[in-house]
Amino acid sequence: MRYLTLKNIEEAKKIVRDYLMGDVETVSIEEAVNRVLAEDVFSDIDIPPFDRATVDGYAVIAEDTFNADEDKPVELKVIDEIRAGEIKNIEIKRGECVEIATGAMIPKNANAVVMVEYTEREGDKVKIYKPIAPMENIQFAGSDVMVGELVLRKNTLLTPKDIGVLAAIGRKKVRVYKKLKFAIISTGNELVSPGEVLEDGKIYDINSYTLMSYIKNLGYDYVFLGIVRDNVEDIKEKINKGLGLADIILLSGGTSAGRGDLVEKAIEMLGGEILIHGLKIKPGKPTIIGKVKNKLVIGLPGYPTSCLTVFDVLFGNEKNLIKAKFRGRYISAKGRVEYLPVMLVKGKEYSCYPITKGSGAITTLSEADGYVVIDENREILEEEDVDVHLFGYTSALNIIGSHCIGIDIILKDANLQAKVINTGSLGGILAIKRGEADIAGIHLLDEKEGYNIPYLKKYNVKNAVLIRGYIREQGFILREDLSLDEIIKNIHNFEIISRNKGAGTRILFENFLKKHNINYNELKIVGEAKTHSSVAKAVAMGRADIGIGIKTVADYYKLKFIKIGEENFDFLIRKERFGDDDVQKFIRSLKRAKLPFKKPENCGEIIWEG
Amino acid sequence: MRYLTLKNIEEAKKIVRDYLMGDVETVSIEEAVNRVLAEDVFSDIDIPPFDRATVDGYAVIAEDTFNADEDKPVELKVIDEIRAGEIKNIEIKRGECVEIATGAMIPKNANAVVMVEYTEREGDKVKIYKPIAPMENIQFAGSDVMVGELVLRKNTLLTPKDIGVLAAIGRKKVRVYKKLKFAIISTGNELVSPGEVLEDGKIYDINSYTLMSYIKNLGYDYVFLGIVRDNVEDIKEKINKGLGLADIILLSGGTSAGRGDLVEKAIEMLGGEILIHGLKIKPGKPTIIGKVKNKLVIGLPGYPTSCLTVFDVLFGNEKNLIKAKFRGRYISAKGRVEYLPVMLVKGKEYSCYPITKGSGAITTLSEADGYVVIDENREILEEEDVDVHLFGYTSALNIIGSHCIGIDIILKDANLQAKVINTGSLGGILAIKRGEADIAGIHLLDEKEGYNIPYLKKYNVKNAVLIRGYIREQGFILREDLSLDEIIKNIHNFEIISRNKGAGTRILFENFLKKHNINYNELKIVGEAKTHSSVAKAVAMGRADIGIGIKTVADYYKLKFIKIGEENFDFLIRKERFGDDDVQKFIRSLKRAKLPFKKPENCGEIIWEG
Repeated sequence: MRYLTLKNIEEAKKIVRDYLMGDVETVSIEEAVNRVLAEDVFSDIDIPPFDRATVDGYAVIAEDTFNADEDKPVELKVIDEIRAGEIKNIEIKRGECVEIATGAMIPKNANAVVMVEYTEREGDKVKIYKPIAPMENIQFAGSDVMVGELVLRKNTLLTPKDIGVLAAIGRKKVRVYKKLKFAIISTGNELVSPGEVLEDGKIYDINSYTLMSYIKNLGYDYVFLGIVRDNVEDIKEKINKGLGLADIILLSGGTSAGRGDLVEKAIEMLGGEILIHGLKIKPGKPTIIGKVKNKLVIGLPGYPTSCLTVFDVLFGNEKNLIKAKFRGRYISAKGRVEYLPVMLVKGKEYSCYPITKGSGAITTLSEADGYVVIDENREILEEEDVDVHLFGYTSALNIIGSHCIGIDIILKDANLQAKVINTGSLGGILAIKRGEADIAGIHLLDEKEGYNIPYLKKYNVKNAVLIRGYIREQGFILREDLSLDEIIKNIHNFEIISRNKGAGTRILFENFLKKHNINYNELKIVGEAKTHSSVAKAVAMGRADIGIGIKTVADYYKLKFIKIGEENFDFLIRKERFGDDDVQKFIRSLKRAKLPFKKPENCGEIIWEG
Repeated sequence: MRYLTLKNIEEAKKIVRDYLMGDVETVSIEEAVNRVLAEDVFSDIDIPPFDRATVDGYAVIAEDTFNADEDKPVELKVIDEIRAGEIKNIEIKRGECVEIATGAMIPKNANAVVMVEYTEREGDKVKIYKPIAPMENIQFAGSDVMVGELVLRKNTLLTPKDIGVLAAIGRKKVRVYKKLKFAIISTGNELVSPGEVLEDGKIYDINSYTLMSYIKNLGYDYVFLGIVRDNVEDIKEKINKGLGLADIILLSGGTSAGRGDLVEKAIEMLGGEILIHGLKIKPGKPTIIGKVKNKLVIGLPGYPTSCLTVFDVLFGNEKNLIKAKFRGRYISAKGRVEYLPVMLVKGKEYSCYPITKGSGAITTLSEADGYVVIDENREILEEEDVDVHLFGYTSALNIIGSHCIGIDIILKDANLQAKVINTGSLGGILAIKRGEADIAGIHLLDEKEGYNIPYLKKYNVKNAVLIRGYIREQGFILREDLSLDEIIKNIHNFEIISRNKGAGTRILFENFLKKHNINYNELKIVGEAKTHSSVAKAVAMGRADIGIGIKTVADYYKLKFIKIGEENFDFLIRKERFGDDDVQKFIRSLKRAKLPFKKPENCGEIIWEG
């Protein structure tokens, strides 16, 4: 790996910003949404351009109505009628009025409009039943926007509302920064395009598809040039093709280890200049920025979340922020700005959770709503207010707690969108208390007092109700057909895949061992998985002899199952959200849906209230 | 106005939802961003599809490294090399290892990868300087996503990240709801297209342009059919044209008063059916929804903010919410669901302010970040938590307080994006205290102790510093050249345009009157404007004889100006934001920019700290 001196991200951003705000072009306003304004826009007209009625009724001289009341209406002569858009040169005198429509021009001498609701028309006379003050129901010329007023500032990212404002002042065209076009290239011998057969040792190309969609949403155009192998000649040729078709060439996946050198070499072979190779950021250290024929060539990291993050840092709308409370504790890489992927959860305030399973995981990409910037001098992030840079976020039902396949089936039956976060039962209880979870699946055994409710008391939950869920069978998952006695007798000989601390299944397992005087620490534990599925999978693939988990996953993997107990998987629901449509749909589907679990008679009913 | 029975908004939403989620089509994933998924997507593969290295280094049998330390490295034989994407059938034995690249397949029998940083290579041997635990630096097959796992639920609005997930599991195409196309029609005799000459009594067409941009951002296609006059035959013909080109026909501006009847009649003449005419909502009561040849024809309200709001309620992403504290007090229309436009401000938490100047104002459109839904049974909204439905929002520097043309000039000089809210000086102080404003322009006179600082003490401001701004000349604005004495002598004969209560200029004016023993209430006040500009404008247009305000606007309108005093216009800045780039840029430009005001020597310096 050869880096030039590591540069600050600010330097990279400046290169990109200067490039993006280079050329200027003039476009029609209907083409201008999501573009950046390259001029200050002043209004050449007053809005409204004339004094106009804001209601349907009669334009009057207010003083004429001062004595009107419900019993003694004032009668005025209707001398004419004005509709919106009509030009009539009318002047009224005392005792006269004009019928007028919303948006129509106020006639001369009129200084108020009486709403039609307070009048009664008889031929060319109208009775006014209510006095009106001068200026009432008139929007005066220029009261909204004035000739010469600055309505939009240079460098504004134009929203649909801004386009409406431009239309309102009569602008047909505006000057915006030239819309640049991206060429997207994926690099890597291991990449295969979606839809093709996945050979051994290969993975599907992800980054190009994420980037295409993200670029489209930012309002830029792109051309996709496909996958190129790790070979300097091929890379050079693809970049060269991109230079003919686009303004910015993006290569992803091409900057880790030796590959970065290939991109660097290709840029140099094309007579280009390397501006940056290596950034003081995490992820994104091996980012390359070069210039060839005055066009930018950028090598992004290969891991999906890293790739999107670095792209967003360089090209995203950096004002697209949301304030949230950081949950948990995170030790940061000192000496580099760190972009930590987080998941956003809406409670009474927004919370965000760090996603620490690594940017190589596709689930990191799917769970990350955005990232938090940790300054290079910060060592630790604790419960504190942070700004989350959003990739895009829409709120949904938050289900935080123990994971169960039953939840997936219920959500499908209810046709609900939800954000499901697997934290284990205890994490679910705490998320409900903090107001972040709407629903938490829990299954926590208290040896003396049974399932769930004792824990709610212990944790002093006040803001939730507990809904009876279903009954899950817990036990050993294995490939061979052994009896429970045989398992217990030989337990020290088996390679066991266990569960993480705090998982309900782990508590159940440790209880079981205690009853049989077996010490957990003396077992051959080959791993502590975080979900039922990964336990079953480890057994199915022969990585372990025995696992612990629910019968449903054993069945799914066609494994044997030896029951050691039954448990109540119940749902804790935050009171504040209990009446919501989505929550009620969830409960109805819990009752109705066909689940691979036993349902007790009171399934879906409130069994406890905090 | 003839309405059918007023219907609930839920009924209208259901009609639209059912229509949008009718037909299904299959598209390539790169075309699928912003579309709604019409199938549950399960993974056909494991991710990763094989056990792979997460670092560059050596694949080893962990047990071989247990005795390694920095002084006594373990030496292993390197039997081969595996790169990402390579397929090699290698098996290692004790004492052996394989050089491996990030992303490459783990060879058989290896159970950990030692990072290259902890090794030293010598020919076909490598020294390992650190012991490694089993499973370290390996991402196991299926640990990220498992065969058969549900990765995306039906009805998900696909984001760029989701497209990445689809690519990751190798999907090339997905089933999504058919993308419908809108035909957009503006109705109204008063409308003129932007770019055309604005005749008397006319206004520019706004709604079509806002809708086009909004529809584009939502990812739909559209065709714009232009403006049609208030005439049933023309309207019928345009709708008919739309039916041939699109799936949904949108008419805006055509539903107030008599126009709604025209649209209704046109739908009926085309053999269509009126599903809804009249909704229990505000704004949007006269909304029409009809069906012609199985296509939707929708008449939206004419006022710009109302039009966008009702469109968003029907077609927007209803999960696009942000929680905010409602500021102020708002009395709602009972018996109708009210959509109240609000401006969002980011402080320690989000706050939102109702915009009450009416949905006819184009400034309502430009200031509204979204709207708050007030249930039909709610009568009053006070300081409370609300959900803001966003039209789109990006945070910017918040400048809340007294308005001055100087601020516009500074922002331009500094090239800054900012949200400027004119609340008057006192509103600015309170917004700083609540943490919503970053900067507040203030000019408040205490007769005994001078400008600004006495008020900061009185309001017990603790979280801000005061920066010296510039000096403004206040006085009378008039068309004729009179002396101050002549004005005072004849003041009861003049029609005066004054300022709103709480404005610094108003306080100054009342002080002036007091000194000359003149009673404000005995003057001929023809209006109390909210900005300097509207005062000057009223004088320029002859609506008043005399106004009060700053010299700068008098000059702008080429009016006479008679000074009655000077004032300090200073900037209160929240301490928490003082160090921010944008704030520092603002201060630098305050010092540097050429302003139409006198600058004191200590301009831009801190003169008080709370």
